[in-house]
Amino acid sequence: MTSFLVKCAGKDNNEYLKQQVQVKNPYLETMEEDILYHFSLGTKTHNLPEMFGDIKFVCVGGSANRMKAFAQFIHQELKMTGNPEEIRDICEGTDRYCMYKVGPVLSVSHGMGVPSISIMLHELIKLLHHAHCRDVVLFRLGTSGGIGLAPGTVVVTEKAVDHSFRPQFEQVVLGKVVTRSTELDEGVAAELLQCSSELQNIPTVIGNTMCTHDFYEGQGRLDGALCSFSPEEKQEYLRKAYEAGVRNIEMESTVFAAMCRVCCLKAAVVCVTLLNRFEGDQISSPHDVLVEYQQRPQVLVSHFIKKRLGQI
Amino acid sequence: MTSFLVKCAGKDNNEYLKQQVQVKNPYLETMEEDILYHFSLGTKTHNLPEMFGDIKFVCVGGSANRMKAFAQFIHQELKMTGNPEEIRDICEGTDRYCMYKVGPVLSVSHGMGVPSISIMLHELIKLLHHAHCRDVVLFRLGTSGGIGLAPGTVVVTEKAVDHSFRPQFEQVVLGKVVTRSTELDEGVAAELLQCSSELQNIPTVIGNTMCTHDFYEGQGRLDGALCSFSPEEKQEYLRKAYEAGVRNIEMESTVFAAMCRVCCLKAAVVCVTLLNRFEGDQISSPHDVLVEYQQRPQVLVSHFIKKRLGQI
Repeated sequence: MTSFLVKCAGKDNNEYLKQQVQVKNPYLETMEEDILYHFSLGTKTHNLPEMFGDIKFVCVGGSANRMKAFAQFIHQELKMTGNPEEIRDICEGTDRYCMYKVGPVLSVSHGMGVPSISIMLHELIKLLHHAHCRDVVLFRLGTSGGIGLAPGTVVVTEKAVDHSFRPQFEQVVLGKVVTRSTELDEGVAAELLQCSSELQNIPTVIGNTMCTHDFYEGQGRLDGALCSFSPEEKQEYLRKAYEAGVRNIEMESTVFAAMCRVCCLKAAVVCVTLLNRFEGDQISSPHDVLVEYQQRPQVLVSHFIKKRLGQI
Repeated sequence: MTSFLVKCAGKDNNEYLKQQVQVKNPYLETMEEDILYHFSLGTKTHNLPEMFGDIKFVCVGGSANRMKAFAQFIHQELKMTGNPEEIRDICEGTDRYCMYKVGPVLSVSHGMGVPSISIMLHELIKLLHHAHCRDVVLFRLGTSGGIGLAPGTVVVTEKAVDHSFRPQFEQVVLGKVVTRSTELDEGVAAELLQCSSELQNIPTVIGNTMCTHDFYEGQGRLDGALCSFSPEEKQEYLRKAYEAGVRNIEMESTVFAAMCRVCCLKAAVVCVTLLNRFEGDQISSPHDVLVEYQQRPQVLVSHFIKKRLGQI
């Protein structure tokens, strides 16, 4: 197996190429047409450079409704013309994902879990490549379970780690396991933390984020249909995670970090905690409290984007 | 770690208990309230026995639109009263999953990939348990890539296998890997094959189904954002899969089979193939052809349900 999926070079003589969104697939250029099946878009049916060429910020999140709400929010924040209520889902030909474009910002849903976000990322990175996008920053805006933090705290991910607290993602390729690094961009994380200090009511920390493939047994919950461990074993696991620097748990960060890294895309993971897992498993806060929590990553990333665009 | 997640006993003296939907979690009964967060349902806020107690068939599938269409289709097939267009999404309080009830049939979406369906299955099995449902059969109705089959062929899964063609599912519990069997109910599979022989235009085979955690690299596609193998290596992998009895590839069957087995639920996986992977990677058939293909598992399972209900 050819090993050209190398770590993105920190230095590159060709600045232009470096900033372009790169795919790592030598066969893609030989294809007459590329159908982005789960977006219901394609290179023959859509003019991707015209539709997406000006994209500079891509924000992804699990819930379709939340990513629509974010698109409407950023529409207001960037003082765009037109009615934010009328923003059109670019992927309306499918219900797998939804996608909204607001000026230089793309808002895309990715469903829950590593496989679901990985399908979306393959097609998103191809889309940005086909559209000749340059200098793009990606954000995952999500929800998570916190460890040792007050609910509502935003965690900007330092390292995305697996169930054993290792900063790596295991990808199966033709039946063989390939291990990839999950390091994220330090500069973007620091910039986000700075943004949080400029805002009211967005308590934010930088910490490690554990990515699991299961919400119940995988995260040590005692309230699933299956549970084979004791409350003490659960607490012990969460305590070990905390000691390893883990501050929150979600289900997409490792593959998001790994794929962005391979394709030289600067990326950040910004998730709010809905509960403190040291204190419970069920998400039982009132609906309006949860809605306000979920807006916090949006407010933070919106502030980052406005600063980058010189609007603050 | 207590090891009570034992294989479901084939013989049981207590016939009543055997038929009840079983959770394998000793803590669940001690909880004052159980919030099924991703369904936006709960034991205090909803009368689950009244809402769901008569469920006998649960059909799950990835796409929300498809599972709504199935609910409307089975509404007509079972000659239910009322307007099928007005079927209400029981989970309208969330966009994570959708759920429709048509008499004894529940139709639920599960998104894409093992983590997404596993969250849904935990909450579905708890729901069926809280509702005191008995003698329930579960079906996954899906789409897949075929191996060596004409597109449009329906595959009823004999064994759900992993990327190395093993009939097992690896679940991480508190950071440790637990291996579970993915055997499905032989009787239901045979009954489905018999049903297919009674229908026109539903070409059906029984074969193994490979479940991967990735649509591109994991399934040997040459058209993802990342690809590090040659066309020859891809063909070799697919050939080995075929020799191991694999006839289609999808992304949910192993955890579906494993969880149903642990909870003593009879289950079947019924997926149509959208393409023959020996011949390509892109799903390029016309939209109307793909729509007709996707109806085939629905027609087959609907026939099964009508026979079981004595309506044929």
